Amino acid sequence: MIAETPEIPYYAVIFTSLRTDGDNGYGAMADEMDELAKQQPGYLGIESARNELGITISYWRSLDDIKNWKANTRHLVAQKTGRDKWYEHYKVRICKVERDYEF
Amino acid sequence: MIAETPEIPYYAVIFTSLRTDGDNGYGAMADEMDELAKQQPGYLGIESARNELGITISYWRSLDDIKNWKANTRHLVAQKTGRDKWYEHYKVRICKVERDYEF
Repeated sequence: MIAETPEIPYYAVIFTSLRTDGDNGYGAMADEMDELAKQQPGYLGIESARNELGITISYWRSLDDIKNWKANTRHLVAQKTGRDKWYEHYKVRICKVERDYEF
Repeated sequence: MIAETPEIPYYAVIFTSLRTDGDNGYGAMADEMDELAKQQPGYLGIESARNELGITISYWRSLDDIKNWKANTRHLVAQKTGRDKWYEHYKVRICKVERDYEF
């Protein structure tokens, strides 16, 4: 769903990816990471969609919160397995949300 | 596909949406907007995926380029029709990409 984020400024991590074939444990780890991310300090929400291209955007209070989540031990395992097994190619973009509006 | 964006900094417009039922001319206008966006000054690329939630991220050289695209006459028609017909709810976030890396 559309994340209910607070007043600007806050931060977004855009993760765009192309998967390899097969699940290879990806689904279970993705669910675990969704749950774990929610428990981190500064977590604000997540939005996700996938066709051929997958896009996941997580929202955070600060750059330090993003850094801490990236260094989370279990998340480091997921990142390494991602490079070894699940992703053909991915790109991560760390962004400051400077303006937002909705309808 | 994953957009091949230049060196940081650049800007991202995250458009997250929930559609109404039926096409109602949406597909044709979406294709037209994709084509038209590519012709705008400062356009750097686009990434898109939709399940229940739709996410489209367009990348731009500057905030002025984003402002000009938002004010484009044909795009204004699309925005209005979007609110009238195609979208239940959407959120737009304008972001400065401060760091990126890929695998």
